[in-house]
Amino acid sequence: MPIEVELIASTPDAARIVAAAAKICYSPSGAVDILDGLDTDKTVSFLKMLRKSGHLSPFEHVSFTFAAEGISRVATHQLVRHRLASYSQQSQRYVSMSGQTCIVPPSVLKNNKAYELFMKQVEESWNCYKELVDLGISKEDARFVLPHGTETRLVLTMNARELNHFFSLRLCKRSQWEIRELARKMLILAREAAPEIFDLAGPSCVVEGVCKEVHSCNEPYENMEKMLSE
Amino acid sequence: MPIEVELIASTPDAARIVAAAAKICYSPSGAVDILDGLDTDKTVSFLKMLRKSGHLSPFEHVSFTFAAEGISRVATHQLVRHRLASYSQQSQRYVSMSGQTCIVPPSVLKNNKAYELFMKQVEESWNCYKELVDLGISKEDARFVLPHGTETRLVLTMNARELNHFFSLRLCKRSQWEIRELARKMLILAREAAPEIFDLAGPSCVVEGVCKEVHSCNEPYENMEKMLSE
Amino acid sequence: MPIEVELIASTPDAARIVAAAAKICYSPSGAVDILDGLDTDKTVSFLKMLRKSGHLSPFEHVSFTFAAEGISRVATHQLVRHRLASYSQQSQRYVSMSGQTCIVPPSVLKNNKAYELFMKQVEESWNCYKELVDLGISKEDARFVLPHGTETRLVLTMNARELNHFFSLRLCKRSQWEIRELARKMLILAREAAPEIFDLAGPSCVVEGVCKEVHSCNEPYENMEKMLSE
Amino acid sequence: MPIEVELIASTPDAARIVAAAAKICYSPSGAVDILDGLDTDKTVSFLKMLRKSGHLSPFEHVSFTFAAEGISRVATHQLVRHRLASYSQQSQRYVSMSGQTCIVPPSVLKNNKAYELFMKQVEESWNCYKELVDLGISKEDARFVLPHGTETRLVLTMNARELNHFFSLRLCKRSQWEIRELARKMLILAREAAPEIFDLAGPSCVVEGVCKEVHSCNEPYENMEKMLSE
Repeated sequence: MPIEVELIASTPDAARIVAAAAKICYSPSGAVDILDGLDTDKTVSFLKMLRKSGHLSPFEHVSFTFAAEGISRVATHQLVRHRLASYSQQSQRYVSMSGQTCIVPPSVLKNNKAYELFMKQVEESWNCYKELVDLGISKEDARFVLPHGTETRLVLTMNARELNHFFSLRLCKRSQWEIRELARKMLILAREAAPEIFDLAGPSCVVEGVCKEVHSCNEPYENMEKMLSE
Repeated sequence: MPIEVELIASTPDAARIVAAAAKICYSPSGAVDILDGLDTDKTVSFLKMLRKSGHLSPFEHVSFTFAAEGISRVATHQLVRHRLASYSQQSQRYVSMSGQTCIVPPSVLKNNKAYELFMKQVEESWNCYKELVDLGISKEDARFVLPHGTETRLVLTMNARELNHFFSLRLCKRSQWEIRELARKMLILAREAAPEIFDLAGPSCVVEGVCKEVHSCNEPYENMEKMLSE
Repeated sequence: MPIEVELIASTPDAARIVAAAAKICYSPSGAVDILDGLDTDKTVSFLKMLRKSGHLSPFEHVSFTFAAEGISRVATHQLVRHRLASYSQQSQRYVSMSGQTCIVPPSVLKNNKAYELFMKQVEESWNCYKELVDLGISKEDARFVLPHGTETRLVLTMNARELNHFFSLRLCKRSQWEIRELARKMLILAREAAPEIFDLAGPSCVVEGVCKEVHSCNEPYENMEKMLSE
Repeated sequence: MPIEVELIASTPDAARIVAAAAKICYSPSGAVDILDGLDTDKTVSFLKMLRKSGHLSPFEHVSFTFAAEGISRVATHQLVRHRLASYSQQSQRYVSMSGQTCIVPPSVLKNNKAYELFMKQVEESWNCYKELVDLGISKEDARFVLPHGTETRLVLTMNARELNHFFSLRLCKRSQWEIRELARKMLILAREAAPEIFDLAGPSCVVEGVCKEVHSCNEPYENMEKMLSE
């Protein structure tokens, strides 16, 4: 089961809001007058300049809210380490896990013998979970035997500055495959909603044309389209 | 010159987004299905329950962006102490202060003698600023003589959880009058955009019907309408 | 295996630092002079007053760093949701899980039949993990079959303001038992290091003498000693 | 009057705490065993490697608390924009400003004519402040006429990760002179307390040997000693 991601909310007219907020720092005019004077072309080139000069705080004024399903608790444990974000996640204390599945890593999917072992083990975990619940163990305690790859669901919100930071870390090929897949789908959706903001995003190989990792994968992305289509 | 505040951006359909994010914690369904099943009445009563039970994190998923003018640097120095927010503020390093004014406190406005002294002093400060600039002093150094009440402009963004916290502190009568006036205008605008989220907001006298300050003003607001119309 | 917690670092002379930081707000003197004038008795009563009046930001100046072992990834997934904190956690991508164990909930320990099922299931998970690794699956993918209760280790740092907030939430009887046990051990250690700061901490039943939860456990702690000795 | 900065608190044994926290991520051992095995040489080279590889989160576990005097409210308005920090600042609402002075920028000090104008203006501001207070205007309102350069005092705490970020921005020659002077004094003190952590800190010209600013000053620092002795 592949990760499903939807963009359920975002700040309308995001690029112009970022540009107006940035311009207020250097202008004697007010925000509303600045907004009125901003056309698309000016906005695009201005945002490019902002990013280049490292003036990133105006990108905080616009936010993007995603709903994700089909993602493992392995990945969400990593994900929620990004602290400049908001999360609402399905609780294993309150929701029975009877309808859930376990995420299967692609490396396991490709290996028949491993896949067989994996699926058998997952099934037994679920049987054990149910037996424990039948014995009177609470859901919140029975889940200790569930596989760490158990599917979860969550809603997450990041502003555009943090999203760009997230994409730079998590779209790197050295990132865990699952959170990388989440990031890829989030970026595709964010680009549709605010192309002027996310026209260039991802790890340093894509954004700066050169890998800045100490332990490089040595297989940099050629460009953003390659990264997004993989 | 009164503070002018405009709401220049906000998350569309904010109440339903908050409700859907909260519901995902307790439901086996995904966010999109939950969103589809949410009508206005259910949302209103559900949000009330969330606030009552202290489950506030879902309110972080929606954000509100305000542009403010006619506010002093006295007030913005306090304002930016709220760290769970984003700010873009007019720079005194880059923008010439020649067109700016000084905010006059109401207590000064009401006192003829004080007003006369105040305005004379402000005018002399501006003259000194200009003379210093004429003598080759940079704007960023000349501004040291400008009055602390000098007008500034900024764009600020807070999510609904932080906004509610901000309103609880800054709409209290013991708060500085200017930041309180800013908060009042922000709440009026936020209520228009998302009435289901901000139907009850402000200090404890308004929200809980009882003052929780150790040093009470002893003149609690009777209700929210009184607070907003003052 | 019980949670093991150690306090590996903390701000020396924490109570006086908090008091001096708070006093600088209301005093014409500098911090060093204020520090010199602070004896223990004055500090204790002053901190009590600060907490009572809700002036909590001075408590942010002092920090406490704990090392925890014998805690499940179930609990740490919850723990790291506290965003005003710093975490360094043992990685399942890089560290082989061969020496790890699974945390056993007390409810399972007390139930012979459940315990037997639980332990058998955990053992099989470990066998499957090893078989997957032997088949060439990477550690980071094989761990998907490991039980969610697998032991982890981490170092965490919180300042005293956030710690007090953490204790108020996580020492409540309605909190998950494991994170509650972590919080209890952290509070015992924090009290030894800075008794003036943590002389009164925990859920509202302990600190305010009345339960403020909407869904109360109806078995409030009688006092702090009871809570810490349980 | 020059800025006076003192380091009033810091995490003891900071370098080893950072190293132990980092090592727990990659090791099957617990934090206490790791701490015991760390000597100074290993720690220094390990921290260098951490910084180089961008694994910066372990530097959050140690904090440094500074008391600063003789700094203007111009500078502190900028300073408190760093949100990953804690501040306690002298209040102009509660503290009478009668004993305060105004910070004089070096460019004004060097220019006799400007200095004369500046000081006269400042004195008149103070006279006006006192007259307003005598007329019954509250301190919090009278301060609107005080010069923006009025001296203030504060206590601030940052962890080592944020401090390094602060130093990279604020020790750049393009930063405002006063906050740069504050940063310089903070770095000197931080290096004395934790030389292994702050052996290399500052803007990109110092740390990476190349300026990364879009609008460079074109006068990069030759090295860290030059920067600190200026």
